[in-house]
Amino acid sequence: MIYMDNAATSWPKPQTVYRTVISCMEKYGANPGRSGHKMAVQAGQILLYTREMLCELFHLNDPFRIIFTSNCTDSLNLAIKGSVLPGDHVITTSMEHNAVARPLKEMEKQGLEVTFVRCDKEGRVDPDDIKSAIRPNTHLIITTHASNVTGTIMPIEEIGKIARNHGIPYLVDASQTAGILPIDLSKLPVDMLAFPGHKGLLGPQGTGGLYIHPSIKLRQIKEGGTGSQSESIYQPDMLPDKYESGTMNTPGIAGLGAGVKYILKEGQSRILAHEKRLGKLFLEALSQIKGIKCYGPSDLSQRTGIVSVNIGDKDSSEVSNLLDERYDIAVRGSLHCAPLAHQTIGTFKQGTVRFSYGIFNSLDEVKACIRALEEISRK
Amino acid sequence: MIYMDNAATSWPKPQTVYRTVISCMEKYGANPGRSGHKMAVQAGQILLYTREMLCELFHLNDPFRIIFTSNCTDSLNLAIKGSVLPGDHVITTSMEHNAVARPLKEMEKQGLEVTFVRCDKEGRVDPDDIKSAIRPNTHLIITTHASNVTGTIMPIEEIGKIARNHGIPYLVDASQTAGILPIDLSKLPVDMLAFPGHKGLLGPQGTGGLYIHPSIKLRQIKEGGTGSQSESIYQPDMLPDKYESGTMNTPGIAGLGAGVKYILKEGQSRILAHEKRLGKLFLEALSQIKGIKCYGPSDLSQRTGIVSVNIGDKDSSEVSNLLDERYDIAVRGSLHCAPLAHQTIGTFKQGTVRFSYGIFNSLDEVKACIRALEEISRK
Repeated sequence: MIYMDNAATSWPKPQTVYRTVISCMEKYGANPGRSGHKMAVQAGQILLYTREMLCELFHLNDPFRIIFTSNCTDSLNLAIKGSVLPGDHVITTSMEHNAVARPLKEMEKQGLEVTFVRCDKEGRVDPDDIKSAIRPNTHLIITTHASNVTGTIMPIEEIGKIARNHGIPYLVDASQTAGILPIDLSKLPVDMLAFPGHKGLLGPQGTGGLYIHPSIKLRQIKEGGTGSQSESIYQPDMLPDKYESGTMNTPGIAGLGAGVKYILKEGQSRILAHEKRLGKLFLEALSQIKGIKCYGPSDLSQRTGIVSVNIGDKDSSEVSNLLDERYDIAVRGSLHCAPLAHQTIGTFKQGTVRFSYGIFNSLDEVKACIRALEEISRK
Repeated sequence: MIYMDNAATSWPKPQTVYRTVISCMEKYGANPGRSGHKMAVQAGQILLYTREMLCELFHLNDPFRIIFTSNCTDSLNLAIKGSVLPGDHVITTSMEHNAVARPLKEMEKQGLEVTFVRCDKEGRVDPDDIKSAIRPNTHLIITTHASNVTGTIMPIEEIGKIARNHGIPYLVDASQTAGILPIDLSKLPVDMLAFPGHKGLLGPQGTGGLYIHPSIKLRQIKEGGTGSQSESIYQPDMLPDKYESGTMNTPGIAGLGAGVKYILKEGQSRILAHEKRLGKLFLEALSQIKGIKCYGPSDLSQRTGIVSVNIGDKDSSEVSNLLDERYDIAVRGSLHCAPLAHQTIGTFKQGTVRFSYGIFNSLDEVKACIRALEEISRK
């Protein structure tokens, strides 16, 4: 099978990820941060190790400013619901995933004001449009780092500067970029970064995180046992415990640490260069095939490893099924949980056939995808 | 090492659990419920399989009334915050874990009214006291099924009947009982059952669940992509999607399915009989050792696999450290994230040394624990 669904979950994982998950379960499967015995201490250490790996990747100093969550949606809900209240105003874009749009639309029912800044047909946002949308009660700006539909990379540095100039916290959804694009949080004007563990970071499903800048005061949205301040029936105020109630997914987080370690060892720039080669081949070949429409910017430097296409007016789900059944190519059709993005690029009815490649895809696999699309387009 | 910390996380797991987690990651590590390709479909099937195993264990018909969460704390937060609002009244007990107490105390700040019904020194609650606490605005009754400090089993059937008679939803925290005590939800008057995956159910950390009775209307507390109704920017209303946003912990849930399958195959009554044998030996031997105080009911039928003790006025953390360092016995000392319970049984200052045994502990291991306690108590 040719796996081209890395934007949903990266697969396969590096062998060290599998090994670390199992070794964690078998050898130190106790509860981290609770009991004081050797195995529990080891379990606690593995959480710290993964935080430290993430700090290295994102250029951060304080591992306790990285909060573990169960996925990026969980991170985004915490970041959004912990920051804003009814009556506040939030600015976001028309390219967001439902993990951003749905919490906002739900809070809108209670009186949150939301502006979805319109992006162009390639999924690009104009930072000036975000600036113009600022109101006196704007308390949060949220954008994706790259669209999960078109791969379009957003100008987060420019948007972050606007946010900083206006004293408004800036939340970035790094679902499609964490582990893939360089993200230097020591320099970028980003106040919160939400990321999944199971995509570009090569960790297991059931992991995710949220970086919180020291200037940000965030309410927790869950309370419970934290293993700390056990004498108190109130949630502790210290990080990361304030936001990490209940037993963590220790084997998953151990695997995430191994995934990030793998990226650091291989070198992010080498991984990115490989993905750029795949993208170049893919986009150039597709531009030669009659009847295929390719979405997103044509400039490769403006996009991540996502190639969304349509063949004439063929239904995107049907094409995706055909790719699976006849060519053994795994892609995702339809709307990708991002109806606003599809409205923006004009594919709300048809959806798109999304190929998303990663570190373990080869040029030969991309060629096989191109051949398959060519064949289908001829029918 | 002798692992006596199963009330925090059960360890080891059945071999099938390890194998299933890895096989899921290696062979069908795609995103469940999103794309339509073979591997994604397989990932979706494993979620359904685990729901079905849980239905068999809990005597339920509809697998979609079991919601997957990241741990029992997550389940309890959903059940509590999805049911009650400021101005409502909630009844709970003085034996609850902070996973119940902390969300309630947090909501109290916003105007929720909370009654903590006092339990006796053995951790027992009188159902009549719960009945007497009911007010016109009581909208939820919450009790643990068994205390994580003393193992005291609560009379959930009687409490549930009182709740039903008054039309008040009843939420049970099954952290210490799911997979250990028989729980027949086709007969018990329980409206919501919150459970962890990584304790008695023998699954991996990072898993948990909430059963929701058809009569219960629960608001979701998170929104995001669900893979369903992708055209809508509002959260879908159908179960389980309404409460399951973002990518699930598929390998963890696969492992949980294997854990529950193991319990069903071994037979819950046989497992329970084994644990009762361990408990009988433990409690009888401790009653013969001078200077050891054992907490909770002396009647074995009133308690689960937890033996909480103190040796004279020795600090419980120090004794726990000694057990770890000198005897290689893993226990948990101090307050076990349950300060209210320790206040109730009179151990708020000293804490207790908690031994919690499980399916994989042997009589010989219990004997070793007894010998160790005997030795320490002589010093």
